[in-house]
Amino acid sequence: MRVLVPYAEAEPKTRLSPLLSATERRAFSRAMRDDVLAAIEDAGGEPTVLAPEPLDCDVPVIVDDRSLSAAVNAHLEPNTAVVMADLALATPDALLRLFDAPGDVVIAPGLGGGTNALVSRHPDFFVDYHGASFRDHRQIIQEIEADLTVLDSFRLAADIDEVADLAEVLLHGSGRAHDWLVKAGVRIDTGSGRVSVCRE
Amino acid sequence: MRVLVPYAEAEPKTRLSPLLSATERRAFSRAMRDDVLAAIEDAGGEPTVLAPEPLDCDVPVIVDDRSLSAAVNAHLEPNTAVVMADLALATPDALLRLFDAPGDVVIAPGLGGGTNALVSRHPDFFVDYHGASFRDHRQIIQEIEADLTVLDSFRLAADIDEVADLAEVLLHGSGRAHDWLVKAGVRIDTGSGRVSVCRE
Repeated sequence: MRVLVPYAEAEPKTRLSPLLSATERRAFSRAMRDDVLAAIEDAGGEPTVLAPEPLDCDVPVIVDDRSLSAAVNAHLEPNTAVVMADLALATPDALLRLFDAPGDVVIAPGLGGGTNALVSRHPDFFVDYHGASFRDHRQIIQEIEADLTVLDSFRLAADIDEVADLAEVLLHGSGRAHDWLVKAGVRIDTGSGRVSVCRE
Repeated sequence: MRVLVPYAEAEPKTRLSPLLSATERRAFSRAMRDDVLAAIEDAGGEPTVLAPEPLDCDVPVIVDDRSLSAAVNAHLEPNTAVVMADLALATPDALLRLFDAPGDVVIAPGLGGGTNALVSRHPDFFVDYHGASFRDHRQIIQEIEADLTVLDSFRLAADIDEVADLAEVLLHGSGRAHDWLVKAGVRIDTGSGRVSVCRE
């Protein structure tokens, strides 16, 4: 399956700035992207990075400097998947479940109402990533009278935006992003309730 | 399958106190518990509530006032599942995947290192819910030389502890807990990044 992976190199992951410098955030962001690209290839997908500026990458890159939604929609032919580049827990198994799920549109929701990964097989479907995109996508799918399958996956729900999310990478990840965090001295911090992370 | 559902009626869900009163938290907590019990039954499971004090409930209740881990371990015969009562997004499908997954121990991890649901088929397995329990359980499973299957489920990963978690119930829930929140005037609040909730 053809898989678009939106990725912007400038100013990535600003919500991680309490813990990581701008240079570190760029390196960590690339590590997550490369984990995602590898998992897509291992699941039999053909990834293309969709970026606002040219960048160095081992897979084909489409440069499109429009907004995220406009750029994705311009390249969203039927039978295309869109997978975010910050799904550091994505595994080939989780992506196979996504690619193989039935339905005109398949969505793996993200925490907090996002749309972390999707498959579109319907010519009228389009994305709108602004705001609570899962809810908006559900509405679009109703309006075009398409079938929606919601994929129940923790690995695809956990996008890595905030400092607390890094705990998920340390606990459940195993690739470049996990190793990058370990080398950077980021560690699990157990208190009461959910664990978070600290830096040595 | 026999399913233990730990549930304590006193002081539930204190991290929801910015939005809900003590009485409301108790009512919401019961609504989540009843959703979980119904989903377990629809998945063919036989739920038993494990509570520190007697309580009114439509399913059998075991009263055991020891700590959560000690009480669960006292009743954890092989081929028993343990499912937390605050998994408001749990569906029969997600629970069927849990019950049917192979392995001596199956764990559906929670956000932030928790263990939200598990199946134990190994006589030497025991729980330790303190701290980052997913990591501790993985260690216990290694030590007893058992097989672990990690279940990839967003619906079982999303336990409802914090105000932001209520957004997941509003977005993805459909049972008593969802309806309770709607009646209480809790609404999705879309800002930048992940959505949260506010109250009317």
